[in-house]
Amino acid sequence: MNREKRNIEVCFSPALFSEFRNKEAIAVITDILRASSAIVTAFENGVERIIPVGSLEEARAYKEKGFMVAAERDGIVRDFADFGNSPFNFTPERVEGKQIVYSTTNGTQAIHVAGDCHMVVIGAYLNFTAVFEWLNKQDRDVIILCAGWKNKFNLEDSVYAGALAERLLTSGNYQSICDSTLASLDLWEMAKSDLMSYIKKVAQHERLRKNKLDDVIEYCHSFDQTVVLPVLEGEHLKNL
Amino acid sequence: MNREKRNIEVCFSPALFSEFRNKEAIAVITDILRASSAIVTAFENGVERIIPVGSLEEARAYKEKGFMVAAERDGIVRDFADFGNSPFNFTPERVEGKQIVYSTTNGTQAIHVAGDCHMVVIGAYLNFTAVFEWLNKQDRDVIILCAGWKNKFNLEDSVYAGALAERLLTSGNYQSICDSTLASLDLWEMAKSDLMSYIKKVAQHERLRKNKLDDVIEYCHSFDQTVVLPVLEGEHLKNL
Repeated sequence: MNREKRNIEVCFSPALFSEFRNKEAIAVITDILRASSAIVTAFENGVERIIPVGSLEEARAYKEKGFMVAAERDGIVRDFADFGNSPFNFTPERVEGKQIVYSTTNGTQAIHVAGDCHMVVIGAYLNFTAVFEWLNKQDRDVIILCAGWKNKFNLEDSVYAGALAERLLTSGNYQSICDSTLASLDLWEMAKSDLMSYIKKVAQHERLRKNKLDDVIEYCHSFDQTVVLPVLEGEHLKNL
Repeated sequence: MNREKRNIEVCFSPALFSEFRNKEAIAVITDILRASSAIVTAFENGVERIIPVGSLEEARAYKEKGFMVAAERDGIVRDFADFGNSPFNFTPERVEGKQIVYSTTNGTQAIHVAGDCHMVVIGAYLNFTAVFEWLNKQDRDVIILCAGWKNKFNLEDSVYAGALAERLLTSGNYQSICDSTLASLDLWEMAKSDLMSYIKKVAQHERLRKNKLDDVIEYCHSFDQTVVLPVLEGEHLKNL
């Protein structure tokens, strides 16, 4: 192991994050379908801040205080919420200059789990190169935290982790001796020549299809639609 | 999903097993390098029963009661133990007709985590076809639990999970809608044409090499050296 190089680790579930004891690292949180893609879209469309909350009770309490709230579970918008988790909900008309409280099945919990790290940044294909270039300028280890599905492994976040790890390794500034990084790299290797075909088999694709929410899948796998960098600052996300 | 078919799930860490709520399933525990390979070897060599214990304190207490004890952490034999975790330690001369208490870094904990399942069986390449044929005769869902490394994902157990899942799916009696099964199948697909080359990159390979314990790696990746089926019965493992 070259001590000059920064380490990359990949964590496949928020429930395993406590095993990754590196508070000096930057955590990249990803929930490709759909929370991290939605957050990145909201900042591209001018949202001022997003307050990620883990529980629906918190989200409801914010709503009662007058906040705009996006909240879903298992892909379904909650009755008290203004809208749900599709990136297409976060239009400029709705979000520009606003604060939004946001609660989802997996992604918003993952953000809090990593709150002790040096910094937390939201990663998606939509801001892929922006995340890479910013990370590459920091002299920090990186932990890519996959939001997964209800604390289980999911494939679409792991494939993204592999894509980002590959880009970081190509810079020459990083190394990895972590089996989950190696697995992510191999999954990305299998997926990358035809990402949309590969993603058809993932469980979340079928969940979204059943609820007629699969219109976002191609968009959520599109590289570099924006250069925003949502980072956690205290209890809220802002664009760096 | 075809309700007539049995489900396959793969769990990448003992710390995630509580998310897999299916007590009617058969759990296949695997820790290829080296606990499950050692257990299978011990039964092939005539051990009567193995008592897997999670903590070194328990292992030491058994030793003080006069039991033969195999115990290691991070690949290093503990001072109070008779021997460590290499399959080559479990020779017929040592183990035939004996009871052995066994405690390892990852594998023996994983066995206990799955204790509430319908049955727990130890899976390795060494007894690959025996495990498949036995599972195929049972009308039960299967959860393959990878022992991993200190609650983190590891590659060699996941590749084995993919090999076993592929064999089960080929029978026509199983299905999987689980992303970790799909990932395991893809990792096995990448590894299978040259398994020994693939396994060279895994973190555990380097850990074993550093401690001069890597002489077992090829043996632990050899298919069908035995037909033993170690299963958990109460607090101990016996050959079915």
